[in-house]
This record gives sequence, C-alpha cells and structure tokens, in this order.
Amino acid sequence: MELEQVRAWAHEAGAIGLGYYNAVEVRRKPDRSVVTAADVEIEQLLRARIRDTYPQHGILGEEGSQHHTDAEYLWVIDPIDGTGAFVSGLPIWGISIGLLQRGHAVLGCFYMPVLDEWYEADLSGPALFNGQPIEVLRDGLLDSEAWICVPSNIHRRYSIDYPGKVRSLGSMAAYVSYVARGTAVGALLGRPKLWDIAAGMAVLERAGGGARLLHSQRPLDLRTMLAGQSAPEPVVVGSSPALDMLLKRIRIRGR
Amino acid sequence: MELEQVRAWAHEAGAIGLGYYNAVEVRRKPDRSVVTAADVEIEQLLRARIRDTYPQHGILGEEGSQHHTDAEYLWVIDPIDGTGAFVSGLPIWGISIGLLQRGHAVLGCFYMPVLDEWYEADLSGPALFNGQPIEVLRDGLLDSEAWICVPSNIHRRYSIDYPGKVRSLGSMAAYVSYVARGTAVGALLGRPKLWDIAAGMAVLERAGGGARLLHSQRPLDLRTMLAGQSAPEPVVVGSSPALDMLLKRIRIRGR
Repeated sequence: MELEQVRAWAHEAGAIGLGYYNAVEVRRKPDRSVVTAADVEIEQLLRARIRDTYPQHGILGEEGSQHHTDAEYLWVIDPIDGTGAFVSGLPIWGISIGLLQRGHAVLGCFYMPVLDEWYEADLSGPALFNGQPIEVLRDGLLDSEAWICVPSNIHRRYSIDYPGKVRSLGSMAAYVSYVARGTAVGALLGRPKLWDIAAGMAVLERAGGGARLLHSQRPLDLRTMLAGQSAPEPVVVGSSPALDMLLKRIRIRGR
Repeated sequence: MELEQVRAWAHEAGAIGLGYYNAVEVRRKPDRSVVTAADVEIEQLLRARIRDTYPQHGILGEEGSQHHTDAEYLWVIDPIDGTGAFVSGLPIWGISIGLLQRGHAVLGCFYMPVLDEWYEADLSGPALFNGQPIEVLRDGLLDSEAWICVPSNIHRRYSIDYPGKVRSLGSMAAYVSYVARGTAVGALLGRPKLWDIAAGMAVLERAGGGARLLHSQRPLDLRTMLAGQSAPEPVVVGSSPALDMLLKRIRIRGR
C-alpha cells in the first residue's frame, strides 16, 4: 500500500472537485445536484483506481460503493467531505481516502484542493501535513486563544463549557486533520459515518491522538461502523489530555 | 477614488501576508509575534500608498494609524482581519480597506489571499465577488441547509434559536462578505471595531444588505466608531428580511 499513490489519487480527485466548485462558486443558492454529480464522479474514479490496483480489497464509499466489505483490507472513501461547505463556496472540504485492516485504520489521506493541503499517514512513519511531521496538542488546552471544532448544530444541540474558541468549518475530516496537526485542541464530531473519519483516524493516531464516545467515554471502535452505520454516540477527538478535558465539558442539551 | 487601484493595494498587501502565513503554517502553537509583524508591515504599506495618492485624506488603522481622522474622506484599514485564523493556519483571513465619506462607507475592498477571493464595491456599480455581481439572500432564510456566521464565543455568550447551521470561520470582514455574496443568510458580529467592517459595509450595502444593533435594533451608525470604539452592541448583518428574522432569534445569555 503506497501512500504516494493514494496521494496521487486524492489530487486527481481534487481536480475534479475543483472543476465543479469553480463552476458554482458565484451562485447565490446552494445547488445540491452539483455536489451530487461531483461526488459520484469522484467516487467512480477512486473505485476504479482501487479495483485496478488492489482487486482483492474491499471498498466502502459514501456514494453507495459496497464491495467485499468483509475483506481483510477495506478502502473507505468520502469523495467530498464537507458538501455543505462545498455548495456554499467555502474552502474547507476535501477528498478522504482511508484504508482499514480488519477494522483498524492503517493508512489515510485527506486532501483539500482549494487550499492545496494534504494530511496523510500510514504505519511506517509519522503523520504528515504537506510532507511535514505533525502531532497533537498536549498543553495550552484551555488558553483563551485555543480552539475546538464543533458541529454546525452546536447552537441547538450541545452545551459546551470551554474558555477558548469554537470553530464550525464544515468538514469532519478537516476537523480530525486540524487536531492531528495540533492547531485545534480537539473536535466534537456529532455522529460520523465511517467515510467521514477513516482517513482522519489513520492520521490522528499516528499524530498521537485518539477518539472517544461522548457518554460512555469508550474509545471509538471503527469495527462497529463497517456496514455504514453512524457512530453510536457523538465522538470527541484529541490528545489524551484534551479528551479528558473535553469529555467533562461537553453535554447534549437537556441530557 | 479608483477601486482598481485599491484592489491592487490589497493584492500587494496579501502577498506580504501570505509570506508570513506560509512561514508559520506547520507550527504547532500560535505565534502572536508573527501576526504582529505581518500586521505592522501591511499597515505601513497601505498607509504609504494612501498618503502618496490621497495626501488630504484621513487614515485609521487597526495597528494604530490615526491621521486626519476628521477629514471628509477617511480610509479605514485592517491589515489582517481574522488574526486568530491566520495564526492557526486557517485560510479565512484577509486585508480590509474601506473608505468613509463623512462616516458613510463609500468604497470597500476585502481580499483573502489564501483563497484569492476579493469582494469590492464603490458607489458607481454593484458589489462584486472576483468581478462578478453579488447580492444578499432574501429567501430560504430558515432552510435546514441555510447558515449564519457566528462569533467564536457563541457557546458561552449567545443563545440562538435558528433551524439552519452556524459557522464560526474567523474573520468578521469575511462574514460580511459572505452575507453580501448571498451564501450566508446573515452574520452576528459581536462588537466590531470600525476596521473590522468598514470595507465590508460598503460591499454589503451595494449588495442590498444592512447592519443593525442586536438590542436597540437601530441601524449601525459608523460615525459612532470613528475614534476606534467598538460598536455599542453586538451587530447583526443581512438582508432586511434576514435582519428581521435574526434579531428575534438571537439573545445574549442571561439577558
């Protein structure tokens, strides 16, 4: 499994996405049909690349790909993570390609074409941001300038006792990447599906971070999501001290 | 007053900002000294350009420029609007250059260098995004995919009863620009200073929008902010129907 090759696929897919993005970016109203067309075209490309290169591997994709999902190696793709941002003309969206081995994330690449930023890791080295090693934050977690990523329904759904800033940016894969890079302290993810986080988890774990469930506080187990289910509870990601801090400070409203 | 010339200044300033941004973007911790250096260098450039071209005009800048602030024409500059995003390696920040005539915004240009997006207007034509005419949203204000911009302290300070999404992105000038462009329904701005919104107000008004105070519901009067004061209350921006809707739905906590 060559990270370099996966990165090339992600860049190829990103160029397709950019074509659609630039075509819609001055429109006043979101046009869902555009993102659907972009999603489908990118997923087809990635599915073809993976099947040509790794015919024995399984594939699970946000746009409906389900091929040998019980294989030892399972590729998990989100052709455009952050479709809401994409149709709104916001830049934080990207192509997410993860690889699981028996339900554990062993390789991931997330590429944001507008920003030309990519986040990647496999088991052979550190997590990388545009080729530079990255790691999660372990201190300064409660500084007033520190920030966490939150879902776009935070105002309705969550109560968060945090002295720093919250940012709602549009893409769960980007959230996990920003945490891995150590710019965000942590992220609250709502209830992701496997394709939202498979690539991100590979990067995050190599950057020294992890993911836990908001209520049970147990580590997130990707094996419970292999059939395309949402995570059983909202998920929080960060370094170990960030997780300890955030799990105490985030509540679902009325709970 | 040539918009084309102001746009060229903003692009020149943006190149300076990008140089600092790229130098810090893989750092783990925000480095405030970098943004201070970038801010000062850009403000010096813009002050020199304005004084060379319009020696009779006043200048007010976020980094301390206060020159003839009682002149008929006052240039208001924010060298980097969105410094928190800038130091965090997030892309939504930019150079804001506005021109007031007796306290009314008559020209504005906001340029986001990472995205190569610019928003501009003067009194001679429509508001423009990268050269294309834009206008504010007047319908679909409560759709579940519709979104508003909120401050990064929303979780502590505000109660918002809104069925769509909230986004916290980092730059007030960007918020006003997204509203002018009709991608965001509206924006809650906390208590801006004049340099955060002078350029944006020129663009927003030509795009058909306005700004009102959260509690008194009166239109924002930039003349109350000419000495560098914060707005007297949080500010909400949008089309007229969006303002009517949002002013009913946003509250300061405990008020």
